[in-house]
Amino acid sequence: MEQLARQKTFISQTLRTALEAMEHDSIQKSAWQKDGSTRIHDYATRGKMIRGALVDLGFRLYCPDPERHAATLADIHRTGAAMELFQSMLLMHDDVMDQDELRRGKPAIHVQYRSLAQEQGCRQPGHLGESMAICLGDVCAFQAFELLSAGALEPACTVALVRLFSRELSYVGYAQMEDVYNSCAPDAPPSQSIIQVYRFKTGRYTFSLPLMAGSLIAGAGEAARQDLARLGELLGIMFQIRDDHIGLFGNPDQTGKPRGADIREDKKTLHRAYLTEAMDISDQELFSRTFGCPHCIDSDLDQILDLFERRGVTGRIEAEMELYAREARQIIAALGHRNPEAHAELEALLVYNQERRA
Amino acid sequence: MEQLARQKTFISQTLRTALEAMEHDSIQKSAWQKDGSTRIHDYATRGKMIRGALVDLGFRLYCPDPERHAATLADIHRTGAAMELFQSMLLMHDDVMDQDELRRGKPAIHVQYRSLAQEQGCRQPGHLGESMAICLGDVCAFQAFELLSAGALEPACTVALVRLFSRELSYVGYAQMEDVYNSCAPDAPPSQSIIQVYRFKTGRYTFSLPLMAGSLIAGAGEAARQDLARLGELLGIMFQIRDDHIGLFGNPDQTGKPRGADIREDKKTLHRAYLTEAMDISDQELFSRTFGCPHCIDSDLDQILDLFERRGVTGRIEAEMELYAREARQIIAALGHRNPEAHAELEALLVYNQERRA
Repeated sequence: MEQLARQKTFISQTLRTALEAMEHDSIQKSAWQKDGSTRIHDYATRGKMIRGALVDLGFRLYCPDPERHAATLADIHRTGAAMELFQSMLLMHDDVMDQDELRRGKPAIHVQYRSLAQEQGCRQPGHLGESMAICLGDVCAFQAFELLSAGALEPACTVALVRLFSRELSYVGYAQMEDVYNSCAPDAPPSQSIIQVYRFKTGRYTFSLPLMAGSLIAGAGEAARQDLARLGELLGIMFQIRDDHIGLFGNPDQTGKPRGADIREDKKTLHRAYLTEAMDISDQELFSRTFGCPHCIDSDLDQILDLFERRGVTGRIEAEMELYAREARQIIAALGHRNPEAHAELEALLVYNQERRA
Repeated sequence: MEQLARQKTFISQTLRTALEAMEHDSIQKSAWQKDGSTRIHDYATRGKMIRGALVDLGFRLYCPDPERHAATLADIHRTGAAMELFQSMLLMHDDVMDQDELRRGKPAIHVQYRSLAQEQGCRQPGHLGESMAICLGDVCAFQAFELLSAGALEPACTVALVRLFSRELSYVGYAQMEDVYNSCAPDAPPSQSIIQVYRFKTGRYTFSLPLMAGSLIAGAGEAARQDLARLGELLGIMFQIRDDHIGLFGNPDQTGKPRGADIREDKKTLHRAYLTEAMDISDQELFSRTFGCPHCIDSDLDQILDLFERRGVTGRIEAEMELYAREARQIIAALGHRNPEAHAELEALLVYNQERRA
């Protein structure tokens, strides 16, 4: 993970240069361009930029001697910066949908614009803030495609990148629809729908897409992309299941969240779905008074956590995790060892997604 | 305009085929993909598709014998279909921002999803409807870029198209921010800001962008794009000013809107901005009791319309319209007459934007 984190400096620099160029080359003199550009840069660079860094990893996996490809380094960073702009777009829109007020330690974009609207005495500041955030998110996506199209790669490679990003992002859009619908539906979503969202919204988007983009720049073929697509799906599903585990059983000192946070919030996790499939009628009353109760008592929480064990939910999930991990290890082993360092980073990423504690 | 309207059949067919291919080639099995695809097709094809048709016009302007380019015809329709998908994206998001309930004679997308959410007993159906519309708009943009990248054009031409669309669309995003901000700001926007929005949101987007895209496919160079960029800005400004004129002075029998509709709604038109610049202190009371008053009396409306004349607003705007039209005619004349039929259509478009009555 340290190697991935080191990419942030390069991607941030590329992003800053690109945003400044778009701001100044532009014929547009709208005051909002300067305002928006500043907010986008600040927003995008407050993340860890792991997605952008995975473009570099995907490239190195298929390129034994990256030094020789020094000319493409700028294009890898540019593609990583585009990935981070897409991420900014999705987060800005997500925050409006989820009505989240904070993002990356600062007010969300719609909250920033709401404050601005309040200071300036605008009508409907809340709604205006959301509208501005929808627009700025749209701008992020357009600027990401502009970044992708502005590189020095072979035109056929650029076209393939645009096609890859646009296709995968439309899957993300549909997965997001499934996710927001699930969050408001009268019935809790079935486990297949939860895994589907993990697979597309986290797996294919966060892991498969940047890895595939990097492999494409390295000149790897369709078979490589298929491998990375599946590997990314597995990594994403494992990441989310681990996330759910931490939300239920995590140590508050390590996670920074109150004990049983996801139970109090009634988060529609895979654990919860499996519990509803496995529990007895005698568990129903405990289930109903604990899930979605912000102030549930400690002894009820203890009983629910115990129920996950007794009804075989944790065992089932551990067994599934092991199957996912095994398939992922097989794919990684079959990728070959063109670049042992990159190969080791991918293995470390798998272990991290499987075992992290916070 | 008839020639432009005839393109709709081809663009619709291309769009239907493309959406079906995306739906079935896809590895995604989300139920929302089928739902979304159907709504997008229905939504996009209920418009007149003039923007999509302008891609074809831009192509023919620089192509003396379009029959010879039969191979590119599919790519022109594909680019037109992409243009219409971008338009669908922007309208879906606009309708959320403007809280419009109807679009193209049917409920807006967020209203469609709100009804679905209500039928299915979801929580927060209004908010869920808006979230789903934001997502589906995002999907439209991604599918538009996928369409652009999936053609049979030379890769370098496809890259240039992606760059053109992404750059121009980020200008539209910023113009939309200016427009939504203006609509809620405590003070009415200055005339320069109004013209700026007309120039970018209508001009460069509706007219310049598709014409430039068509010229690019025909192989025209940067100078041609500069000409079409400016021509489109002029066409858009004229279209909007004419729109404002119709909203103020239009015959309700022809426009289908009540008399003085834009005055009752207090629409921040250029006419209104010029009137506030030109009026006397003695006009102030009449102005305040009429603009933004849904039930203002006929005699006040008559007096305001008369004031536009007496304070020189209509004269000033007519003179500016004539300057815009003159510049546009000069650009059209200088484009050359490679294709007299296309040239005549462009001239007809200019006259339409300048003189239409409804």
